[in-house]
Amino acid sequence: MKKRVAVIGAGPSGLAQLRAFQSAAAKGAEIPEVVCFEKQANWGGLWNYSWRTGLDQYGEPVHGSMYRYLWSNGPKEGLEFADYSFEEHFGKQIASYPPRAVLFDYIEGRVKKAGVRDWIRFENVVRLVEWDESRKKFTVTVQDLPNDHCYSEEFDHVIVASGHFSTPNVPEFPGFERFNGRIVHAHDFRDAREFAGKDVLLVGTSYSSEDIGSQCWKYGAKSITNTYRSAPMGFKWPDNWEEKPNMKRVDGNTVTFGDGTTKKIDAIILCTGYKHHFPFLPDDLRLKTANRLATADLYKGVVFVNNPALFYLGMQDQWFTFNMFDAQAWWVRDAIMGRLQVPADKAALVADVEDRVAREDAGKDTHDAIQYQGDYVKELIAETDYPSFDVDGACEIFFEWKEHKKKDIMGFRNNCYRSVITGTMAPVHHTPWKDALDDTMESYLQN
Amino acid sequence: MKKRVAVIGAGPSGLAQLRAFQSAAAKGAEIPEVVCFEKQANWGGLWNYSWRTGLDQYGEPVHGSMYRYLWSNGPKEGLEFADYSFEEHFGKQIASYPPRAVLFDYIEGRVKKAGVRDWIRFENVVRLVEWDESRKKFTVTVQDLPNDHCYSEEFDHVIVASGHFSTPNVPEFPGFERFNGRIVHAHDFRDAREFAGKDVLLVGTSYSSEDIGSQCWKYGAKSITNTYRSAPMGFKWPDNWEEKPNMKRVDGNTVTFGDGTTKKIDAIILCTGYKHHFPFLPDDLRLKTANRLATADLYKGVVFVNNPALFYLGMQDQWFTFNMFDAQAWWVRDAIMGRLQVPADKAALVADVEDRVAREDAGKDTHDAIQYQGDYVKELIAETDYPSFDVDGACEIFFEWKEHKKKDIMGFRNNCYRSVITGTMAPVHHTPWKDALDDTMESYLQN
Repeated sequence: MKKRVAVIGAGPSGLAQLRAFQSAAAKGAEIPEVVCFEKQANWGGLWNYSWRTGLDQYGEPVHGSMYRYLWSNGPKEGLEFADYSFEEHFGKQIASYPPRAVLFDYIEGRVKKAGVRDWIRFENVVRLVEWDESRKKFTVTVQDLPNDHCYSEEFDHVIVASGHFSTPNVPEFPGFERFNGRIVHAHDFRDAREFAGKDVLLVGTSYSSEDIGSQCWKYGAKSITNTYRSAPMGFKWPDNWEEKPNMKRVDGNTVTFGDGTTKKIDAIILCTGYKHHFPFLPDDLRLKTANRLATADLYKGVVFVNNPALFYLGMQDQWFTFNMFDAQAWWVRDAIMGRLQVPADKAALVADVEDRVAREDAGKDTHDAIQYQGDYVKELIAETDYPSFDVDGACEIFFEWKEHKKKDIMGFRNNCYRSVITGTMAPVHHTPWKDALDDTMESYLQN
Repeated sequence: MKKRVAVIGAGPSGLAQLRAFQSAAAKGAEIPEVVCFEKQANWGGLWNYSWRTGLDQYGEPVHGSMYRYLWSNGPKEGLEFADYSFEEHFGKQIASYPPRAVLFDYIEGRVKKAGVRDWIRFENVVRLVEWDESRKKFTVTVQDLPNDHCYSEEFDHVIVASGHFSTPNVPEFPGFERFNGRIVHAHDFRDAREFAGKDVLLVGTSYSSEDIGSQCWKYGAKSITNTYRSAPMGFKWPDNWEEKPNMKRVDGNTVTFGDGTTKKIDAIILCTGYKHHFPFLPDDLRLKTANRLATADLYKGVVFVNNPALFYLGMQDQWFTFNMFDAQAWWVRDAIMGRLQVPADKAALVADVEDRVAREDAGKDTHDAIQYQGDYVKELIAETDYPSFDVDGACEIFFEWKEHKKKDIMGFRNNCYRSVITGTMAPVHHTPWKDALDDTMESYLQN
């Protein structure tokens, strides 16, 4: 009997897992039966844009946090697949900060080529995973949404690749229930044009705050204000953007800040982060971790220490993304196929996690954090046949990117970088980001 | 061993069930152990207003579809509890169309008096219900949200009282993914003031469309347009409100209607109804019904014909509400306590459903539908000790209400009706609805 492997989610992590298994099969290996459960109607995870917010057409929470006009907020040279370059996909090198549609097309190109689409059961949402210790089997209970049918199947392994930027962390502030405007979490933000001419408040200093604020500014918001708890982001913002300490309360449309000042606000966008949320996992299987580089309870960042038949992909906070998911997926594949040994002794798994946590905690700054995650990617790649690439070169690109942002927050996307996969320099994009209102692939590729 | 009964939901239906059991206990009966699972932090179901939309602080779908400034859209004399009048609660008769806070207070008053709050496990969401046919037991798997803990318990009966106006039915129209404004379902509508000065489009001719449109009009929307499929609502709308056939598509901010005309629109509110949605129920326990007066598969409108240990409350489309839930809850209580016999022969259960469907289908109009549901309420009440009341009188109130709406859609809430419980006439409210911008209980009770 072949092993059966369930992959939960067909976003960048889940697709990396399918590609990893397919790549082994293409080299002649006998691979397990892989079934991927995806609640959306298409693959791509967060990169699969939907206008929907809240609940979808089946009453399920909308997975997507993607908004219109999003351009990558980091250089594509930091996330390029080692086995499928941008040049292979587009037939030429392209500029460094592609909009969503371009990245979606790139992700899709690799898995179309791999031919793994029929491994995926779309619009099938996992309701519950249970582990039978005596039989060493998982029972996965699934709702087939279009057919409104609930069924269960058994698996030897489950790989959770459902992401952790889908379930919003939504705090309450005094006065919210009487605010006379829109309150929306970044998860449900869709079109910046809706906020043209408005005074917009962004709560937080996360990437969401920085980027959604920039979008609103670009598409004509009257003013942007963002609040911070410990420190402002500190970029050189445009004149109509200011950073304010804490939101204390809201009265009607007036927000009071930690410094006692007030401002009339039309809309509040909560850029307050996301939760690791696994409503389909019982206590004994559920990962509980902060959003950090060294997650709790994951040996090698992927094996659940409380049950090594269970894996998690991409649960780390991320500098590296697609290429890190690849490194993880190849590693998990080899663990499942017995090419790598996971220690049988739980203490060894726990010690590995503790070591990772200590090493992350020893870092002083962003530079160290990027290098830490680069080293993690190198560590995993060295143990599988994933094509090796210049990870330190990718770290250097991230260091440059941070400098470019410091210099010009509304202009950093006009820079270009050299691919560590093909060695080719990216072209300068034809239009500065702040003037490029058209985010289609057709427009972006006209270089 | 006492029987154990699980009630899912502490809204008007679930609370009616708790009150029904408590009322039997107060009269000296031995009652089962009742555990009510409520995902929200407070009781009241839809009447428990929250500013939240989409997903809540625990990543769970927000239950509430309640919006600010909502006043009852039917006379309170049609929904008054027979065992707890408005006069008993407020110490005086009050006007006929109370705002949300007033109705919430009234619902709460009865169950506070009954002392059933500690039967409820708040912020505990039911994940899965399973039936063991051999042992005749339900296993209910629950997530304790604040403690992030998943657990299971066994019950002899499950009563599903989770409502069916919480999961939006969200259709897609051509161009939605490129619309440059907000698209929101009525479920996530909160504050009409957000739409002041805007051209608002409401899709549909439901009560949501009528009432949310009226709210937006009252709070200063520039214009209201609603679309219809078969027929317009046909009320005498204000000058800045028009009804248009179908939405064909959206281009940028321009909507094209079925008659070929177009209109520039700032925001689209989908008043397209709700789904019966039970993500916690497997195929063999899940009710599948249209939103109608005679639901599919419910004997006496409450007993699930495929498993008579399972009950559903309030799953009908509704003219009658609180008092109908009471009639159902008392009946279900008596079925569970063996005071009433549910036929053992499934064919008899199915025949009852067929008969109800045929009788509903034989009705010609709204008048017949109201009388049909009134007769249903009378039928149930006659079989339990729920205080009998003049249900036909309540039907007459609904007939009058329909006439009042026809006469003056923005003024119908200024009418008053005589209580069928206490016989007292309601006072005229101190301010016409369209001028009453303050929806607090304090303001409403100043009569």
